[in-house]
Amino acid sequence: MADVDSLELLLAAIREGQPRAVGRAISLVENSAIELPTMMKALAPAAGRAMVVGITGAPGVGKSTTIAALVAALRGKGHRVGVLAVDPSSPFTGGALLGDRVRMQQHALDGEVLIRSMATRGHLGGLSVAAPSALRVFDAAGCDVVIVETVGVGQSEVEIAGVADCAVVLLAPGAGDGIQAAKAGILEIGDVFVVNKSDREGAHAVVRELRTMISLGDRRPGDWKPPVLSLVAITEEGIPALMQALEAFRSDAESSGRWQQRRLAQARRQVESLLLARLRQHYTLERRNQIERLARAVRDGRLDVYSAAEELLDPG
Amino acid sequence: MADVDSLELLLAAIREGQPRAVGRAISLVENSAIELPTMMKALAPAAGRAMVVGITGAPGVGKSTTIAALVAALRGKGHRVGVLAVDPSSPFTGGALLGDRVRMQQHALDGEVLIRSMATRGHLGGLSVAAPSALRVFDAAGCDVVIVETVGVGQSEVEIAGVADCAVVLLAPGAGDGIQAAKAGILEIGDVFVVNKSDREGAHAVVRELRTMISLGDRRPGDWKPPVLSLVAITEEGIPALMQALEAFRSDAESSGRWQQRRLAQARRQVESLLLARLRQHYTLERRNQIERLARAVRDGRLDVYSAAEELLDPG
Repeated sequence: MADVDSLELLLAAIREGQPRAVGRAISLVENSAIELPTMMKALAPAAGRAMVVGITGAPGVGKSTTIAALVAALRGKGHRVGVLAVDPSSPFTGGALLGDRVRMQQHALDGEVLIRSMATRGHLGGLSVAAPSALRVFDAAGCDVVIVETVGVGQSEVEIAGVADCAVVLLAPGAGDGIQAAKAGILEIGDVFVVNKSDREGAHAVVRELRTMISLGDRRPGDWKPPVLSLVAITEEGIPALMQALEAFRSDAESSGRWQQRRLAQARRQVESLLLARLRQHYTLERRNQIERLARAVRDGRLDVYSAAEELLDPG
Repeated sequence: MADVDSLELLLAAIREGQPRAVGRAISLVENSAIELPTMMKALAPAAGRAMVVGITGAPGVGKSTTIAALVAALRGKGHRVGVLAVDPSSPFTGGALLGDRVRMQQHALDGEVLIRSMATRGHLGGLSVAAPSALRVFDAAGCDVVIVETVGVGQSEVEIAGVADCAVVLLAPGAGDGIQAAKAGILEIGDVFVVNKSDREGAHAVVRELRTMISLGDRRPGDWKPPVLSLVAITEEGIPALMQALEAFRSDAESSGRWQQRRLAQARRQVESLLLARLRQHYTLERRNQIERLARAVRDGRLDVYSAAEELLDPG
């Protein structure tokens, strides 16, 4: 990669939207590379232009197909689009899996579509720091919309709500009905709910149940009420309605001030996550030994975790 | 609850294994109640007897049915059993959902089966502190085995690996095939893999694929090789094999020393999580204002998150 050897050249290539440069930059993020702070400092002024759309849902609901269809629709409007697949980080997967995603291959040769997957294991500060840094790279590369895909439901979804401007929760009949959605704690993080495979049996019931649960939710007057849309991603039926919902969400959030509020809350969490990670890095050897001794005491039932934390806070 | 009004009475009632007392104590954990450190201090010496079995998997794979069958088998051996369902914490769900779990109702009147669900939102230190504290309550209540159920795949699973002695990953044909399992990062956290609904089409392929992926994994000589079992939870076919696998895992982990090593690593993470949460609580007003100012600068592209964290670490 002689063309992106120096950071200056890399930055220039990112700003031109060169896919290889974007890929290289995401790798630096992924690996918490030594050049990362300098790169992020240089990219900071470019921040905030792109709309970040988070797409999340259980395995099998059709995230890849939906994203491919959404990318096609965004390309149809002339947008430059980034796709970031966040992998909870298995050594088994690395960054290679996107290549297996048949549906995305229609976009593989389109220079206006930048696709990368990213593992976050071992990143200083975890997903909550790594994903925004990667998103900023896409942003600097001139993407109008960046789609962030996370697999799974659970904690990682809560985190994706922490990096997306708009969080789309994807469900499918059978894969998880309404009660299971509630169990997974997704109801309060979704800005838009999409029931994919809506030509299948049971889809209407899922839509109905979700709408009921959403209407029961705690919402103040003027708050955005998440729509529940039907989709058949494989035929792109319902994609125009999803595009409209994203637009409607954006204009509602911008006019109410919630767009900037959410971005502030996200920035606060990012700074805090990184601060805590840095504090942890700065432990002295003595501190490490103290933690080790206390952890043994907790394991062996000689001490409880609260007393251990107190002792660490107040060694006096 | 006049019978558990004072902490002393509560502790005595927990030690007798009274279900209401256990429920009350879990509520204290859930809410980070002021009495919690005192209670956990008193319960610390009781720690470490119970085997904690974590069961995780995507919605729809049959976790509740599997757990009900496993509880029946453990009861058949005369064990006292605890079940803790960890909910990534929706205000929509609270602790009420367990009541809906029809399969668990066969055990509802059995005083030797203690069942509780727990939300963890807002707990100081999150699931990584709340779950072990709750497990310690079950332990003190004389449970021989405690089953921890988490919903979803993703980050919460990684956390469950951080509290369980043995992590069981449940899959089902259709709900998520091998590649999707790898995407969700579960391969390296499972000690035992179980393919439920194995009478359905495609189940054998999932078993085969998982075995292949596991055999490709990074394992040193003497390391435990996670078995892949077939199960039809609803008919209890395969439950005896699962019981045997849990036993085999335990004796292997105990004889190799990994049992105690893992518990030490867990205790270390718990102490650290709580320490970081406490540090955050102790922010001064000045610190808070500084974080707010830096977060705004990050949001607006005037600063990057790494420079912000540096400034917080070194105000000089």
